[in-house]
Amino acid sequence: MGYELIKQMQAGGSDAREEVPPIYVVNPKGQGALGAPGYDAVAKIGAPVDLAVIASPPSTVPAVLRDCGEANVVAAAIITAGFSEVGNDEAERGVVEAAERSGLRFVGPNCAGVVNTSHYLYPTLETRPPAGRVAVVAQSGAIGGMVLAWAKQYRLGISKFVSYGNAADLNEIDLLRYLADDPETDVIALYVETVGHGRRFMDALQTCTRRKPVVVIKAGRTGAGQRATLSHTGSMAGADRVYDAALRQSGALRVESVEEMFDACKAFVNLPRDLGRRVAIVTNSGGPGVLAADRGEEVGLDVAQPDPATQEALSEFLPGHCALGNPIDLTVQGTGAWYRRALSALLERYDAAVAINVSTPYLDHMDLARGVCQAAEEAATVTDADKAVVAAFLPERIVAESVAYLEERGVPNFATGERAVAALSLVSQYQQAEATAGRDVIPSVADRAGPLPVLEPEAMAWLDKNGIPVPPFRFAETENEVLESSRELGYPVVMKIVSPQILHKSDVGGVILDVSGDEEARQVFHRLAEIGSGCDFRGVVIYPMIEDAQEVLLGLSRDPQFGPVVAFGLGGIYTEIWQDIALRVAPIDQDEAKRMMSEIASFRLLEGVRGEPRRDLDALAEVLVRFSELPFRYPGLCEIDLNPVFLFPEGEGLLVGDVRVITERADHERDAEKRETKERHCR
Amino acid sequence: MGYELIKQMQAGGSDAREEVPPIYVVNPKGQGALGAPGYDAVAKIGAPVDLAVIASPPSTVPAVLRDCGEANVVAAAIITAGFSEVGNDEAERGVVEAAERSGLRFVGPNCAGVVNTSHYLYPTLETRPPAGRVAVVAQSGAIGGMVLAWAKQYRLGISKFVSYGNAADLNEIDLLRYLADDPETDVIALYVETVGHGRRFMDALQTCTRRKPVVVIKAGRTGAGQRATLSHTGSMAGADRVYDAALRQSGALRVESVEEMFDACKAFVNLPRDLGRRVAIVTNSGGPGVLAADRGEEVGLDVAQPDPATQEALSEFLPGHCALGNPIDLTVQGTGAWYRRALSALLERYDAAVAINVSTPYLDHMDLARGVCQAAEEAATVTDADKAVVAAFLPERIVAESVAYLEERGVPNFATGERAVAALSLVSQYQQAEATAGRDVIPSVADRAGPLPVLEPEAMAWLDKNGIPVPPFRFAETENEVLESSRELGYPVVMKIVSPQILHKSDVGGVILDVSGDEEARQVFHRLAEIGSGCDFRGVVIYPMIEDAQEVLLGLSRDPQFGPVVAFGLGGIYTEIWQDIALRVAPIDQDEAKRMMSEIASFRLLEGVRGEPRRDLDALAEVLVRFSELPFRYPGLCEIDLNPVFLFPEGEGLLVGDVRVITERADHERDAEKRETKERHCR
Repeated sequence: MGYELIKQMQAGGSDAREEVPPIYVVNPKGQGALGAPGYDAVAKIGAPVDLAVIASPPSTVPAVLRDCGEANVVAAAIITAGFSEVGNDEAERGVVEAAERSGLRFVGPNCAGVVNTSHYLYPTLETRPPAGRVAVVAQSGAIGGMVLAWAKQYRLGISKFVSYGNAADLNEIDLLRYLADDPETDVIALYVETVGHGRRFMDALQTCTRRKPVVVIKAGRTGAGQRATLSHTGSMAGADRVYDAALRQSGALRVESVEEMFDACKAFVNLPRDLGRRVAIVTNSGGPGVLAADRGEEVGLDVAQPDPATQEALSEFLPGHCALGNPIDLTVQGTGAWYRRALSALLERYDAAVAINVSTPYLDHMDLARGVCQAAEEAATVTDADKAVVAAFLPERIVAESVAYLEERGVPNFATGERAVAALSLVSQYQQAEATAGRDVIPSVADRAGPLPVLEPEAMAWLDKNGIPVPPFRFAETENEVLESSRELGYPVVMKIVSPQILHKSDVGGVILDVSGDEEARQVFHRLAEIGSGCDFRGVVIYPMIEDAQEVLLGLSRDPQFGPVVAFGLGGIYTEIWQDIALRVAPIDQDEAKRMMSEIASFRLLEGVRGEPRRDLDALAEVLVRFSELPFRYPGLCEIDLNPVFLFPEGEGLLVGDVRVITERADHERDAEKRETKERHCR
Repeated sequence: MGYELIKQMQAGGSDAREEVPPIYVVNPKGQGALGAPGYDAVAKIGAPVDLAVIASPPSTVPAVLRDCGEANVVAAAIITAGFSEVGNDEAERGVVEAAERSGLRFVGPNCAGVVNTSHYLYPTLETRPPAGRVAVVAQSGAIGGMVLAWAKQYRLGISKFVSYGNAADLNEIDLLRYLADDPETDVIALYVETVGHGRRFMDALQTCTRRKPVVVIKAGRTGAGQRATLSHTGSMAGADRVYDAALRQSGALRVESVEEMFDACKAFVNLPRDLGRRVAIVTNSGGPGVLAADRGEEVGLDVAQPDPATQEALSEFLPGHCALGNPIDLTVQGTGAWYRRALSALLERYDAAVAINVSTPYLDHMDLARGVCQAAEEAATVTDADKAVVAAFLPERIVAESVAYLEERGVPNFATGERAVAALSLVSQYQQAEATAGRDVIPSVADRAGPLPVLEPEAMAWLDKNGIPVPPFRFAETENEVLESSRELGYPVVMKIVSPQILHKSDVGGVILDVSGDEEARQVFHRLAEIGSGCDFRGVVIYPMIEDAQEVLLGLSRDPQFGPVVAFGLGGIYTEIWQDIALRVAPIDQDEAKRMMSEIASFRLLEGVRGEPRRDLDALAEVLVRFSELPFRYPGLCEIDLNPVFLFPEGEGLLVGDVRVITERADHERDAEKRETKERHCR
C-alpha cells in the first residue's frame, strides 16, 4: 500500500507546473522506493516534513506517531485500518494518546487519505480528480472514491478531498470549520453515516451553509442501513428523522444518492446561488421532455407554460409543428439557432432552462451545443447573471464532443433531463435553506430553575409558571374537596387519578370524562381511589370539561446525538397511521415553529377546512417556542408529552389537556419500580 | 433523411452472416443512392417488396401508399412527421384511408422506425443495438433511441424495436399482442404517454404479462407532464392514478425513468422469474454497502442479517475485521476467493446477492469478477436455478474489463448498488404481479336490467335489489306519513330532503340527524319542505339513526380511457388530505377487492386499532365486487357515490348511509338545470 501511495503522489506531483515538495520513504529497513529516498525513522530525514502519510500495520502506528513527533511533524493521515471499526477501541486510544503527546493532529485511522489539488498532493489510493472548486468530505473512503472517479470521468473540479475514517482526531466538524473559510472551495459535498456531537456538527454546518452550499448524504435512512452503519463505523446512528431535521435546520441540502450529490455539485459550481424555481424545458424530442417535466414538478419546480407574449415570440421563428408549451419541443428538426433563440426568449421570463438533445448518430449535435452556449452567454451578459442554462445532451457515446464543449463554457450537462431538473431544484432550494437555518443550536443552559414536577397537578402548575397555558384545575384528596372543587369549576368536569406510580392513567381507567353532578363526582372519586389503592394514591385532579377544540400534541425527547428534540403533530391516528409529525432540534424560534407546524400534512385541518374554524396558530407557535426552551431551563428534564393540547379558534388560544413529565431521576425510579411491582398489579 | 435511413439499413445488413434482402430507393426522379437502385414508383421495382419505409413529405404520403398498394406491399413504416401531433388530423385521416384502400398496415406516422435484429433490419435513425431478447416499444422515438443507445453502450441485447409514433394504424395494442407470441422476445419494455382503448390495452398487456415480464413507463404523471403529452401526441392522458391501477391489474411493472427500465430489462434477461425478496449485499466498502441496504429496504426487499449458522460459515474464512451483518463487508482486502465463498454461503439462505466492488485504480478487479462469476455458476448448478447474483462493479472507467467479463457470464452489472437492488426488487415483483393480474377487463355488458333510479329512495331500493345492503327506510310525503314512518323505524331517526333538483342535500341543510320524537319529526319535516319549496320537493326519506360504525366510501366513475373505475377509501379527511384512496378498473373480483382494501394507509383502522373492533372486511369485499359490476349491468350509469357506508364489526355486515347516482341522462339534465335555475336559488 505504501508503494501505491508513493506512486500516486509522484504521478500527481508530476502534473504540477511548479516544483512540489519531496517525498521521503520511512520503513524499518530504511528502503527507498520509486526513486524516493528511504529512512528507518522520520527523525532521520533531517529536513522539515509537512505531512506524514501512515500505512504501517495497526500495532506500529503509535510508535510511528512518536517518531513523527520527535521530528516535529504536526500533521498525519493514517490510512491503516484495524481499529475501532473492527472493535479494536484500545488500539485506537493508543493512537490518539501518542498523537496528543507528540502534539500532532491527524485524519483517520481507517481512511482513504486526502487530496489537495492546488498543492498537487494526492496521498490516497482513489482516482486523482481534476482541480476545481468542490470539496469532498466522506466518512466512507469508497463513497469519496466514487465521487472522485466520476469527477474525473465527467470533469468536475475538486479542491480538497478528505476521507476521515474513524475520526479518532479530526472529524467532520473540524473539516467543515476549515472548509467554511477555505477560499479554494465553493461547494462542499459531505457523506456521513454518524456524527459524534450533533449540535457542534450543526453549528459547523451552519457556519458553512451561510457562506457556501453543503450537499449531504446521511446514510442509514432505514433499519437495514442503520444496522449496517453500526457495524461499519462502530457507532450507532440516531433516528433518521432527527438527522433530517438537524440538516434542514443547519441549511444543508440533503440528497440520497451519490449521483444526486455529484449532479448537485456540478450545478452549484456553474450556476448562480439565487436561482428561482421557474424552469423552461427545451427539447428536440417529446418523450424525454415529458419525463423531465414530470420530474420537475415532482421535485418542486414550477414548470408552467409560457405566457402568450413568450409563445408569440417563439412562434416568430419556430414552425407550426413545434409544441410551445413546456417543454418546448423543437422536434428533431431543431437547429442550434432555434435552441439559441428559444432559450433566450424563455430566459426573459423563466429563471432557468434545460436544453435536452436526445441525439441520433446523424444529428449535428455540435451545432446544437453552440446554440445552447450562445444562449447561456447572452443570458449571463443581458441579465444580472441570476439565470441558468443547463443541458441534457445524450446518449453519452454519441455526444461526448458536444458535452465537453458545453461544459468548457460553463453549461453543466446531466445524464438525463430528469437529473438536470433535480439538480436545478437543489440549487433553487439553497437560498431559502440558507436563509432559514435555525437559531443558535448551542444555547446556554440556565441553572436549574427549580425542582421538576412529578405529579400531574404539580406539572400543570409548572407549565403555567413557564408560560404554557393550562386550564383551571383543582387537586382534591377527599370526597368533600372533590365536591367543592367540582362545583367551583362548574359541571361537567373531568376527573383523573393522581399517583406517582401510574403513568398511563387511561390504561388503568383513571380518566373519567363528563362527570355531570355531585352524585356522579362522589362515585367517580371512590372508583378512582379503589383503582389507586396499593399504588400510592394521592387524590384526583379535576378540570372543567373541554369540547370542540382541535387536539394537537407537543412532545420533547432527548436524542443521543442531538439532545433535546421537539415534536409536533395532531396525535391519535394522525401520528400512528400517517406518522404525520414534525421534528426539530430544540430550541426553535417563532419562524421555525411556524415552518414546523405547516410541515405536517394535517396542517390543513388547523387552517380551517370542512366548515371548521381556523385555529389560533399564533398562540400555538408561541407555546411551541416556550416549550422547546424547557430542557435548557431545566437540565434534568428527560421527556415531556403534552397530549392532547386543546387548540381553539383564532384569537382564543390553547390549553394543555394532559401532561407527562419524565425527569432523569424519575426515569431511574420508574425502572426500579418496574422491577419490583409491575404496574398492572396496581389494579 | 432517406439517405440516412439507407445508410443505416446497409450498415446493419453488412453485419449479417447470411444474405439480406435488397434495398430499393423510390423518389420522384427515380435516383438511386449508396449503390441501391432508384425508381420513380414502387410499382416499377418489379420484385416483391416486404416493407416500405416512408420518409417523404407529409402531403405525398397518401400517394406513396397507393403506389405501394399497387405493388402489393402490405407493410410500411411511416417516419414522416407533420400529422396529428401538430394538429393536422385531416392529413392523418388521408393516410389512414389510403392505407385501408391499399390493404396495407403501417406503423407511424411521426415515428422513429423499427428494428428487427434477427433479420438485420434497421430502418431507423436510432443507434443499432446488439441482438438479444428484449423488445422495446415506444410511443416516443427518442425514448426508444435512448434505450437503444444504452443497449449498445452497456451490451443489452434487443430483439425488436418499434417506435409507433401517432399510432394511426398499428398501435401499442397490436404490438403487444404480436410480442406476446414472439419467440425471440423474453422481456418487453414499453413507453407510453397515452393509450387509445384502455381496456383493449389492458387485455393485450395481460396476455403478455402471463408469458413474459413487461416493464412500463407511463409518462405524464404530473400536471406538467400531462399538458406536455397533450401537445406532444395530440391526445389527452387520463388520470395517472387510473393508469397506475390499470397497469397493476394487467400484471405490468411500472417504472418512472428510462434508467430503471433499462436496469429492469437487464435483470429480467439474466435472472430467474421466480425470484424471492431476501437479498444479501456483499461489498468491499462500507458506505456503498450502506446506501444499497437503505435503498433495498425502501424498494421492499428483505435485507435481513444472516442467521447465526451463516455468520458462522462466513467467519470460517473471513478475518475478524469483516462485518458479517448485511451488507457483508469484506473490506478493501476482499479477494475473489472471499467473494466466491461469501456469496455461495449466503445464497443457501438468501434468494439473491449483490456483489459490490468499488474499485480503486490499484485493485485487481478481474480477480473479484472471477470470484463473483464462480459463485454465480455454483448457485446455478447446486440450486434449482432460482437464485440470482448481480454485480455493482464501479466506477465504470476503472472496471470496464471486469464488467464485460461479468456480463458475458450472465451476471448483470449495475451502475451502483442502489440501482442493482432496485432492479432485483422489480424481478421479485414479477411473479406476484403476474399472478394477481385482474379478472377479465372486457366484461360482457348486460341488457339494461331496468330503469336507473333518480331519487334517493329509488336508489336505495335499487341498491338493495342489486345485493348491496341498505338500512330500512321510508319515503314520506305528508306529515302523517312522516310520523307513522318514524314510529315504525323507531326514534331517533335521520330525515333527508328528497328532490330531483337537490344533489348536495347537506349543503342546503337537507339532512337532519338524531330526530328524537314526534314533535321534532313534525318540525323537521316542515323545515325540509320549506327548504325544498320551489325545487320540486317530493318529500323526505327517513332512516333509523346509525352510530358507532366505521364510515367508508365506495365510488364509481367513468375514465375517458378505461371506462368504469371503482374507488374505495374512508372518505372525509382521509380522502381530502391524504388522498388515501384505492382505485381499480372495474369490475373486480374478491381477491382484487381485498388487495384494494388493504392498499389504503388507513386500512389499519378497519383491522381494529386503539381498542376499536375489527370490521366486517368479508362483507365489504363482497359488496365492492357487486358494486364494481353495476356499470356493466346498467350501461347508462355514469357515476355513483356511496358515502358514507357504515361498516360494522366482523360478522355484522355493512349498510349504505347515502347514495348519489348520476346517469348519462341526468348528467345532461343537470347541466341544463344549472343554466336555467342555479341550485342556490332553491334556498
